[in-house]
Amino acid sequence: MGKLQQEFNEYRSKMNEVILSKNNLVMKRLWNLDTNTYDDGALPKKTKEMLGLVASMVLRCDDCIKYHVEKCHELGVTTEELYEIFAVANIVGGTIVIPHTRRAAEYWEEVIVKEEGEEQGGIQERG
Amino acid sequence: MGKLQQEFNEYRSKMNEVILSKNNLVMKRLWNLDTNTYDDGALPKKTKEMLGLVASMVLRCDDCIKYHVEKCHELGVTTEELYEIFAVANIVGGTIVIPHTRRAAEYWEEVIVKEEGEEQGGIQERG
Amino acid sequence: MGKLQQEFNEYRSKMNEVILSKNNLVMKRLWNLDTNTYDDGALPKKTKEMLGLVASMVLRCDDCIKYHVEKCHELGVTTEELYEIFAVANIVGGTIVIPHTRRAAEYWEEVIVKEEGEEQGGIQERG
Amino acid sequence: MGKLQQEFNEYRSKMNEVILSKNNLVMKRLWNLDTNTYDDGALPKKTKEMLGLVASMVLRCDDCIKYHVEKCHELGVTTEELYEIFAVANIVGGTIVIPHTRRAAEYWEEVIVKEEGEEQGGIQERG
Amino acid sequence: MGKLQQEFNEYRSKMNEVILSKNNLVMKRLWNLDTNTYDDGALPKKTKEMLGLVASMVLRCDDCIKYHVEKCHELGVTTEELYEIFAVANIVGGTIVIPHTRRAAEYWEEVIVKEEGEEQGGIQERG
Amino acid sequence: MGKLQQEFNEYRSKMNEVILSKNNLVMKRLWNLDTNTYDDGALPKKTKEMLGLVASMVLRCDDCIKYHVEKCHELGVTTEELYEIFAVANIVGGTIVIPHTRRAAEYWEEVIVKEEGEEQGGIQERG
Repeated sequence: MGKLQQEFNEYRSKMNEVILSKNNLVMKRLWNLDTNTYDDGALPKKTKEMLGLVASMVLRCDDCIKYHVEKCHELGVTTEELYEIFAVANIVGGTIVIPHTRRAAEYWEEVIVKEEGEEQGGIQERG
Repeated sequence: MGKLQQEFNEYRSKMNEVILSKNNLVMKRLWNLDTNTYDDGALPKKTKEMLGLVASMVLRCDDCIKYHVEKCHELGVTTEELYEIFAVANIVGGTIVIPHTRRAAEYWEEVIVKEEGEEQGGIQERG
Repeated sequence: MGKLQQEFNEYRSKMNEVILSKNNLVMKRLWNLDTNTYDDGALPKKTKEMLGLVASMVLRCDDCIKYHVEKCHELGVTTEELYEIFAVANIVGGTIVIPHTRRAAEYWEEVIVKEEGEEQGGIQERG
Repeated sequence: MGKLQQEFNEYRSKMNEVILSKNNLVMKRLWNLDTNTYDDGALPKKTKEMLGLVASMVLRCDDCIKYHVEKCHELGVTTEELYEIFAVANIVGGTIVIPHTRRAAEYWEEVIVKEEGEEQGGIQERG
Repeated sequence: MGKLQQEFNEYRSKMNEVILSKNNLVMKRLWNLDTNTYDDGALPKKTKEMLGLVASMVLRCDDCIKYHVEKCHELGVTTEELYEIFAVANIVGGTIVIPHTRRAAEYWEEVIVKEEGEEQGGIQERG
Repeated sequence: MGKLQQEFNEYRSKMNEVILSKNNLVMKRLWNLDTNTYDDGALPKKTKEMLGLVASMVLRCDDCIKYHVEKCHELGVTTEELYEIFAVANIVGGTIVIPHTRRAAEYWEEVIVKEEGEEQGGIQERG
């Protein structure tokens, strides 16, 4: 796993644990619901993760973008498809989305490199 | 065509004409680019219109929502699929998206009814 | 009930019914969760409705504002308190909040007048 | 004065009066400060009104847009200049700014027509 | 004082000094007004800081969140109350508020630890 | 060139190269269009960069702010003028703009120092 990914995932895990330890019921339920939202349904989860990504981009939430970029990769979104999602986000949301696109592109490069490394190395951990 | 649709489309056409008549090159090019963005590519245009819809919903732009709802319908998005897009938008963007979801749902009902009426009647104009 | 209130509540009821009739589970659960969020807890629901109002104001969601203004009134928020919430919203969110403050103020005047009328008349329906 | 302008200005005056009558000191001071912000300084007020307009457009506040469109007209902004402000707003803020640009363009047409009418008629009231 | 707090407060002080040294009257007055907004009034300042926090969360301003989290702690907001504010912010603003909630939770943990350390040690500096 | 500027410009160049290498036509055209938007026209480019800056500030995009701050400096905007742009942004967008104003002010100080250093040293590279 690349450096950006590791930092992001470790921080997220650590703080999610802190938040959940406080037992606020609304927070817990919202997080469960969040998981349900991206399950296969009338739309496949790949499409839903793409929807989650474009929504995160126009709302300019870097951490949300990282999360969905990772999921998109896991579900087989290609680089060409990813950049078409970027294009929709930049057209709808304007040039203020560009800095977030840069960081999304950086994260994607890391996710792809990881993939190639791990495919060569063998085992591949996901999720 | 239903009342909401007619009003929306007439106003849009009228004002687009006014704007384009001023010959601002940036505005013209942006609008062309906007059209290109939703063309078939690595992703089919149906997927792109769904991306445009969810982006418009989280950014809470009613007119943009109407536009993409109409396009989604034209491209065969079903009611069940549409509501899964609504679900992603509401989870990502929160309960402030609900009022826009109401108006999107209202517009969808009109688009569907039109469809049924026109299918019975015969000719069907789109785009 | 005043005209603005009646229109808002009728439209909301009608469209909520349409949305719920589609049986999208995520939407249903989010709405339940939304209700739970404002229940009495460590903070009393009056405080929570004030939090909901200020959040709706800085996010500039007129329908959300109407909803929370009505709830605030039901829970005993005074005009002076309301305007201090308005002040926080306008300072945090800037002068773009002013047009929404105008509509919030208009709605509040109607809610208050209703109250007085109904107190004279007797019965008072809420919720 | 055209219909849109009249409605906007009457509603604004009426509700501003209601809000100010509640004597919330923060609201009053913010409004004074808002007026000071657009006074001549290192930058002339024409430039400041253009800044106010583009800020209102990317934040998608229709009433704020109307206000600054009117001020821009009073201070001599031309149609060509106005559309260059529109262009910046649409590029920075994306296609979600388009519906607001339509309404801004509609308002501008009314303001211009008024101008011409009044120039023929003679007296011209501003501010 | 914890590391996050120290960094945040030092940077804020340093840059506020730079900004104020330029003598822009509007900036100065806005900052005074900002202070007035959270004074005791019809609503106690504890409530107002909670309003400021939820507004900052839905607008996703990390520095604003830190500021109000610190103030909330000074004014006696408990962990349970804080998480109910978090819940309102996450429901109203959606899952894009989660990353900011993580950082708010991290900051809170630091503020609480400081408190305990200082209570044991004796002196306690605030504000 | 100061440290903030160097880091910002290097990262931007590196990632723009990555993004453009993917040959997404919409992204490429949007970036060209972005450049055109700020060319001299009915409004001089100095005014347009000021419009771009205030728009970036109210939308709270730090990287966009850095970009336009640099451009404003190149085009002769003075410190006093800059702070009047800051004032408009803070009044329109509220106190959530303050943290971004701090970072903008920090960047400006670096840009100015650079300028002075380079004026003494002689050659000056721009753009």
